[in-house]
Amino acid sequence: MIENKDNMIENDIFLRACRYEETDRTPVWLMRQAGRYLPEYQATRAKAGSFLGLAKNPSYAAEVTLQPLDRYDLDAAILFSDILTIPDAMGLGLSFVNGEGPQFSNPLNSEQAVLNLQVADMGQLDYVFNAVKEIRTALMRNGKQRVPLIGFSGSPWTLACYMIEGSGSKDFLNTKKMLYNRPDLMNRILDINVESVAQYLELQIDAGAQAAMIFDTWGGMLSSGDYQKFSLDPMAKIIKRIKSNKKYESVPVIIFTKGGGGWLPTMANSGADVIGLDWTIELKLARETLDQTGKKIAIQGNVDPLLLLANPKEIERRVTESILNLADAKVSGSHPLNGHVFNLGHGINQLTPPEHVHSLIAAVKNASTKLRGK
Amino acid sequence: MIENKDNMIENDIFLRACRYEETDRTPVWLMRQAGRYLPEYQATRAKAGSFLGLAKNPSYAAEVTLQPLDRYDLDAAILFSDILTIPDAMGLGLSFVNGEGPQFSNPLNSEQAVLNLQVADMGQLDYVFNAVKEIRTALMRNGKQRVPLIGFSGSPWTLACYMIEGSGSKDFLNTKKMLYNRPDLMNRILDINVESVAQYLELQIDAGAQAAMIFDTWGGMLSSGDYQKFSLDPMAKIIKRIKSNKKYESVPVIIFTKGGGGWLPTMANSGADVIGLDWTIELKLARETLDQTGKKIAIQGNVDPLLLLANPKEIERRVTESILNLADAKVSGSHPLNGHVFNLGHGINQLTPPEHVHSLIAAVKNASTKLRGK
Repeated sequence: MIENKDNMIENDIFLRACRYEETDRTPVWLMRQAGRYLPEYQATRAKAGSFLGLAKNPSYAAEVTLQPLDRYDLDAAILFSDILTIPDAMGLGLSFVNGEGPQFSNPLNSEQAVLNLQVADMGQLDYVFNAVKEIRTALMRNGKQRVPLIGFSGSPWTLACYMIEGSGSKDFLNTKKMLYNRPDLMNRILDINVESVAQYLELQIDAGAQAAMIFDTWGGMLSSGDYQKFSLDPMAKIIKRIKSNKKYESVPVIIFTKGGGGWLPTMANSGADVIGLDWTIELKLARETLDQTGKKIAIQGNVDPLLLLANPKEIERRVTESILNLADAKVSGSHPLNGHVFNLGHGINQLTPPEHVHSLIAAVKNASTKLRGK
Repeated sequence: MIENKDNMIENDIFLRACRYEETDRTPVWLMRQAGRYLPEYQATRAKAGSFLGLAKNPSYAAEVTLQPLDRYDLDAAILFSDILTIPDAMGLGLSFVNGEGPQFSNPLNSEQAVLNLQVADMGQLDYVFNAVKEIRTALMRNGKQRVPLIGFSGSPWTLACYMIEGSGSKDFLNTKKMLYNRPDLMNRILDINVESVAQYLELQIDAGAQAAMIFDTWGGMLSSGDYQKFSLDPMAKIIKRIKSNKKYESVPVIIFTKGGGGWLPTMANSGADVIGLDWTIELKLARETLDQTGKKIAIQGNVDPLLLLANPKEIERRVTESILNLADAKVSGSHPLNGHVFNLGHGINQLTPPEHVHSLIAAVKNASTKLRGK
């Protein structure tokens, strides 16, 4: 296991914000910061031949993970990978059809397929753990690690959606049908996913990941009540297991349910250190809602990724406004800007002009530094 | 103008619930209740040759509007039409490509196109007003109208999304770009849409519509703050104008923003009589949130339309559970089930087995009648 002491990190402001410690400004990173909007990413991808060729090659994965850090003043690196590596390792046969997104050749389209499903073979995921190790090495500069490295996984529910449907979907009709008609099968899949995701994140941490994020892209399409049972509870089980192990207990866990803003009071009971937010909920409201639960939970988010297509002045204006909004929150015993990691509310769009990202980051740093000084 | 006195309506429970009056059970209708899941609808559509051929022919539109009422015990009829009739009447050239949804041949893809845009010519929409009249006539039985007729329109924001993009979209990137970079152009479009939708709904009421619903399918993709400015405010302007006219003031107005559950407190100030809900917010929470605003606003919704693909026992169980949940709400001065119109949280899915709809309706009526008896 790679040494994880924070004092070996040059810039650990991201980890301190995740732990709701005092910071002198707001840290920032961007979901999908290593991505198609960067020409240097396109170049590496071209060398790799395909998206999966890129994701499955630890050296290429390390290369693209570092690219946005070399270009921008970001406060965290995130492992370059895909949320669907686990079902691929279960034998579902992942591929990416150009322009159509992920496809599984063996989706869970029968009772027998569900009964045959087994916890993912972690040996099949060595390329991920090797990528984490390579990235940690690549992050070293003058004997220190530049910024912390975030590992991640899809949530059990979100993985189940793709595993059942076999691809993305407008309404995940087959998934909902199974949920309503065969909750026994759905629970079998979720239990297997919980065990797989837990092992996967633990091994990422063993390899050097210093925070773990669970992406719940599709929890937001569930009914209130079903979200808690089928998406949040499985995530809570994973967190409980990670946190019950001394080896992992200090590693911040971030959960992010797109469209989950209405469920913050129950998400507060998940055990997560940080809750990701999309742009449909104001930072101030989210902060106050979580504060009222009596728990110290950090927040991450939440600007609309398409704001990066606006002109730099408008990006600056809105980013500043969003930090001013949070600074106005009534919270107990801490500056309202503490416990906030600035991010987008979803992955960065591929049409983002790379220079616009500078404007966003500068605005976060300027506004949040000034407001702390007050 | 057709006589709109409620005492000429055989079953006016829907209108009474919209007005938050006491009712002895919960009324029910279903968004897109006249639709592709019904074989009789498919037959009429085949006669009409196309979806637009159907929507633009008042006799066919009346025929399909009545079909679900003949099959099920529904408490309201809704005009069969499309939300994009207004931009079509503005000259944007609507067509429906099989399997790909709506397309405009002249989208607002340049500044000049936006500057040329004019309020829709209501003469171009005579087919809609004629359909309303034909439906009102068809609804008569033994000198009384069977159930009230709901008219509707897309919201100014939702219309703008399609007008700018030229079709549906995953992220409405061009729309967001205009919102962020050229709010002046966006506001011009919205102002024109407000005037068009207001005239359109007024003329539907003149023709015989007894309630007006505004469908805001895409308001939920806006940032908090932008939703209020660009989607809710335009709807509020329309409602203010309708309500300021003695001729229309008693007609209930329903607004429905998909994904808008987090914005109920501001929606309460829109002037709407009824707020539509999707399945991501519990009825009880919605009811209590609105009650805390001190305004008497009815709610409509909110079951996941895909629940209708479940087995009838599960449909019954969940519908009953949802009514029990609402009955548990703490509200001031009224039975908590008053002021609720049962509906789906989005349009009925085309794969819905028609016989399942009976189970849903029966469960609504049984559960809500029993719970009022308490």
